[in-house]
Amino acid sequence: MSELIQPRVLKGFRDALPREEIARALLVERLTRVFRLYGFVPIDTPALEYAEILLRKSDGETEKQVFRFQDNGGRDVALRFDLTVPFARFVAEHREELYFPFKRYHIAKVWRGEKPQAGRYREFVQCDFDVVGSDSAAVDFEILSLMREALRSIGVDSFTIRLSHRGTFNRFLSRLGLQDKSEDVLRTVDKLAKIGEEETASQLAAFSGAEAAREILAYVKGAGSRPEDFDATLALVERMAGGPAEDTERLRAVRAMMVASGVDASFVLDPSITRGLDYYTGIVYETFLDELPSIGSVCSGGRYDNLAGLYMKDRVPGVGSSIGLDRLIAALGELAARGKSTPLSGAASFTDCAVFCEDEAFMDRYQRLAGELRSLGVSCEVFPDAKKMTQQYAWAEKKGIRWGIRLASDGPKPIVLRDLTARSDRPCATAEEAARGIGAQQAT
Amino acid sequence: MSELIQPRVLKGFRDALPREEIARALLVERLTRVFRLYGFVPIDTPALEYAEILLRKSDGETEKQVFRFQDNGGRDVALRFDLTVPFARFVAEHREELYFPFKRYHIAKVWRGEKPQAGRYREFVQCDFDVVGSDSAAVDFEILSLMREALRSIGVDSFTIRLSHRGTFNRFLSRLGLQDKSEDVLRTVDKLAKIGEEETASQLAAFSGAEAAREILAYVKGAGSRPEDFDATLALVERMAGGPAEDTERLRAVRAMMVASGVDASFVLDPSITRGLDYYTGIVYETFLDELPSIGSVCSGGRYDNLAGLYMKDRVPGVGSSIGLDRLIAALGELAARGKSTPLSGAASFTDCAVFCEDEAFMDRYQRLAGELRSLGVSCEVFPDAKKMTQQYAWAEKKGIRWGIRLASDGPKPIVLRDLTARSDRPCATAEEAARGIGAQQAT
Repeated sequence: MSELIQPRVLKGFRDALPREEIARALLVERLTRVFRLYGFVPIDTPALEYAEILLRKSDGETEKQVFRFQDNGGRDVALRFDLTVPFARFVAEHREELYFPFKRYHIAKVWRGEKPQAGRYREFVQCDFDVVGSDSAAVDFEILSLMREALRSIGVDSFTIRLSHRGTFNRFLSRLGLQDKSEDVLRTVDKLAKIGEEETASQLAAFSGAEAAREILAYVKGAGSRPEDFDATLALVERMAGGPAEDTERLRAVRAMMVASGVDASFVLDPSITRGLDYYTGIVYETFLDELPSIGSVCSGGRYDNLAGLYMKDRVPGVGSSIGLDRLIAALGELAARGKSTPLSGAASFTDCAVFCEDEAFMDRYQRLAGELRSLGVSCEVFPDAKKMTQQYAWAEKKGIRWGIRLASDGPKPIVLRDLTARSDRPCATAEEAARGIGAQQAT
Repeated sequence: MSELIQPRVLKGFRDALPREEIARALLVERLTRVFRLYGFVPIDTPALEYAEILLRKSDGETEKQVFRFQDNGGRDVALRFDLTVPFARFVAEHREELYFPFKRYHIAKVWRGEKPQAGRYREFVQCDFDVVGSDSAAVDFEILSLMREALRSIGVDSFTIRLSHRGTFNRFLSRLGLQDKSEDVLRTVDKLAKIGEEETASQLAAFSGAEAAREILAYVKGAGSRPEDFDATLALVERMAGGPAEDTERLRAVRAMMVASGVDASFVLDPSITRGLDYYTGIVYETFLDELPSIGSVCSGGRYDNLAGLYMKDRVPGVGSSIGLDRLIAALGELAARGKSTPLSGAASFTDCAVFCEDEAFMDRYQRLAGELRSLGVSCEVFPDAKKMTQQYAWAEKKGIRWGIRLASDGPKPIVLRDLTARSDRPCATAEEAARGIGAQQAT
């Protein structure tokens, strides 16, 4: 016999056991339902692409992290490290086949050779949704409304979407004469929550002067951090940026749609949101869970001027957002641990009912009954061997199966439906009666 | 401005446009629903693994096809080329955390550097389902019953699952003294449909003698190719194999469950099914569409003795099957082209209703109405700009959206619901009334 190989995965990679994969599947199903309600369609792109295509626009940091190699045909290829670059290539390649404004969602794996650390993996799932081919305020609003609905659909009802406009910020910096230092300002302001106001002011003052530092802090703090401060903050940043312009009009238009649709209580105008050095040019946003602010944004994005400029001449503007699926799953787990109910029930199975096997000679009847229950919509599995009942009960319990059935050899009610949690039996005459018993309890 | 990069994918790879990805998503949802009804749970494994783990058992052909490289840490890694080897590693690694019999499904991408040709790609989706940790006939039957239900769930109702038992065949070959030539026999018999009876007999005779060749042909032809010939064929092969044994008893037990569950009309006992040189040891099966036999098996599998023998000492027997998703999608497309209705409607969107934009000043109202429709379960999108109505109609038509809404500025019925196919208008007072109009028509 040959030597055994130690079964193991690569550093930074992981398997998903049923409990985790069921949670992810339920989450993705709910998000997908909302994407579809908003008219978004799925696409797919290859995991492997020409390195030239994936890396052309990247900084050195990305290049170090990407899984890149020569394939058997000598091509320089790489595993995708996000879903944005492949989408840009996709839009350019298929522009004649798509109908703009084009709305897509894409939930798929990406790979980055990051230093593995707690909660960071080299393979993870991204969930992106974008509308491309429209400059309209309507799509800015639609993405924001969709983000809100998506989070609500998975049982997260206590969150705030914080938004601002890069254009307003840029005008403000120009007025201060700091347009050439915008990267420094963004980088420093991004640390505000972490290092505090005083230290931020001191770091800003080092390259902008004390007066500008004071103004920058006043700008990013706005007029208050509640949804109802939106208009006051908008008036403040508009004034500090030099008066009304396209950017503040855009924020005003989006705000009007929020109010008209009755969703304004989920949104805060927060001028400190800048999305760092990203490629955004318009409205940008981040989403924080009110009960778990420390985990950071669970859904972020914004408007960009030109998605596919590397691959085509026509300008394709758009707005896009990305849900941090793994972060959200971790957050829901944390909320569940605190006693909040979430859709991630933690079950290790989808099975409603186990048909136990007391005598293998009756296997035909067990299987027929299981088939009848399934045709009535009851998820059902048959224990395949006549092992001890205690063993069969333990197996069902470990899998989180609530209902069990034993089959008596005769009598008017041969189907004994057992509530495995309450440990109570209920004799039933037919599969329909048993299915009703299961359904009635599940509905309560 | 920098030079444009030609947007393109690697040879043998492809994008999925919305129409294709929607079809795949609908298919996968229906299959998933059936997997869950049978108590199967999802798992996931990394796309990238140690090459040593993936390739230990492979033949030279696989090794040539695999995408293998050194990662940045100098590890010898490879992209998975199937879902079976990773599942074996998974079972060995997590054996303490799983509950046996363990039933999993896994729908995911695999990569093979095959020579690209019509219908063959270097990246494709596999859909595997297995029950491991049980020798019972019940799980042989359950997988077969699940295969049948899965195909029916996607609207394929005209198919035949052909099965046989490797054990019976092996006993038969031993009786002929050909046990050492089983690979040659399997290889030759596999070509029967292609090269015809005479040529097969001649090739068999070359290494087994004319009399044995005649017997082999009689064996693989059985007693008839209809579901109702099952028992006669079973009696025939049992006799030719030397009488009753565990293998024929197993076939008999599975047949009894088929009859008891009323599903026997989908199954043919076909002794010519051997699954070639695969690692199966028990019942094996292939599935053919009655109207498209030439595309080959769309769902195949069988029982194996020991899944994870390379990685652990305990024997883990099981049964598993795999749906050829891409082949099935192609087949459904072909059936649809022949006028058969299939769940792959060919729509380029999930959207029920477009809200048209006649005046951007009304965008608040359009968005509010869209929100109301979505909360009533109507998938809905708002056209974001006040472009010409002919352009907005054309866009909706291209996406396959059936319903459109224009909003009048006042009046008791300001919502004009348009059936874009019938080109008929229906004024409605409320979003509820419009949603009922859409729902009522969709139900017909």
